[in-house]
Amino acid sequence: MKTFNVKDLNALEKRYRIALVNSVAGFKSANLIGTKSAAGAENLAIFSSLIHLGSDPALVGFITRPSKVARHTYQNIIETGVFTVSHVTASLRESAHQTSARYDAGISEFEACNISQEYLNDFPAPFVRESPVRLACTLEDDIHIPANDTRMIVGRIQSVYIKDGFLHADGYLDLAAAGVVAISSLDGYHTVSEPVRYAYAKPDKPIKRLPYV
Amino acid sequence: MKTFNVKDLNALEKRYRIALVNSVAGFKSANLIGTKSAAGAENLAIFSSLIHLGSDPALVGFITRPSKVARHTYQNIIETGVFTVSHVTASLRESAHQTSARYDAGISEFEACNISQEYLNDFPAPFVRESPVRLACTLEDDIHIPANDTRMIVGRIQSVYIKDGFLHADGYLDLAAAGVVAISSLDGYHTVSEPVRYAYAKPDKPIKRLPYV
Repeated sequence: MKTFNVKDLNALEKRYRIALVNSVAGFKSANLIGTKSAAGAENLAIFSSLIHLGSDPALVGFITRPSKVARHTYQNIIETGVFTVSHVTASLRESAHQTSARYDAGISEFEACNISQEYLNDFPAPFVRESPVRLACTLEDDIHIPANDTRMIVGRIQSVYIKDGFLHADGYLDLAAAGVVAISSLDGYHTVSEPVRYAYAKPDKPIKRLPYV
Repeated sequence: MKTFNVKDLNALEKRYRIALVNSVAGFKSANLIGTKSAAGAENLAIFSSLIHLGSDPALVGFITRPSKVARHTYQNIIETGVFTVSHVTASLRESAHQTSARYDAGISEFEACNISQEYLNDFPAPFVRESPVRLACTLEDDIHIPANDTRMIVGRIQSVYIKDGFLHADGYLDLAAAGVVAISSLDGYHTVSEPVRYAYAKPDKPIKRLPYV
């Protein structure tokens, strides 16, 4: 078994440490976050920190570090109060990863990375047309994380757009069938197998597998 | 395309909404969080909200809602300042899901769900012996999320334990090869294919795939 304590982690070469520590949080959601500046410049950036915060109201969160370098996504969300989330599929992953390059604020990653933008129902931030699962979000909160001066953007889901054919009868959305990928570490993109689902667990009952329908 | 706006979401049957809204955040990390109360009672619970917060210092976060019902994990972390994270594999997923049943505080999920506990290097919280990727964490912060009265526990990684054979030369940990699963929605467990990795993206360069070594 390979073991790293704090001293070992501190002694690692920087890029090795970043790759390792990003890995140990497990599989992550792969998302393109779409924004537009108050002046009208579109921005699209890949994030792997989206999390579910609650379903009533429907809330998601993601982590950003605005202080270190120019972070157009963060600035645009603070300016306009809105953003979109478009899930990344296997066919989008290459161009999605390319959005992580440090383009100038005047450059739209939609154009630079060959991704189609789309506007839906007058929502002011752009979506990725090719994505099968998309969210329109308004800024609900902007929470400082003092431990490393990052921020959690809390978004309230205003609309959900799902390509036909992936929603099960009980509200479960089949991300795997929709081709949505998972991310590991900084740069690993994974296709995902169909789910094994289990029923709500009870202390006195054996676990029960749900049918895949 | 299936569309849900806020009004549609509010009108959904509760369990349908929970399944749907939990789905739209994408694939999530599958983790067993191990704690021990000040009185010595072990607890193990599955979480799907672990996120990477930073690599220097090495920080992770996860979301919990302590106010609604008894949350032994949260209470134990506040009492003792420590917790462990053990990643869930395909062979662990059934017993891992069973830890979500509402066992009384006196019941150890290790025993009730047939999972082996292990103590490593005098760390006071228990790990899952069967897990190939495990973290020892100390409580760094406990951040209130006012939007829905949840909390983000921020943990500082004190030790990383990785089963031999899955760490690449550049610090990338091959979670897929280690058999670690991803979670979707509340109850979907997925095996994951080997990664497609891309090099650090630059604005003026075409994207480059990294060799899988």
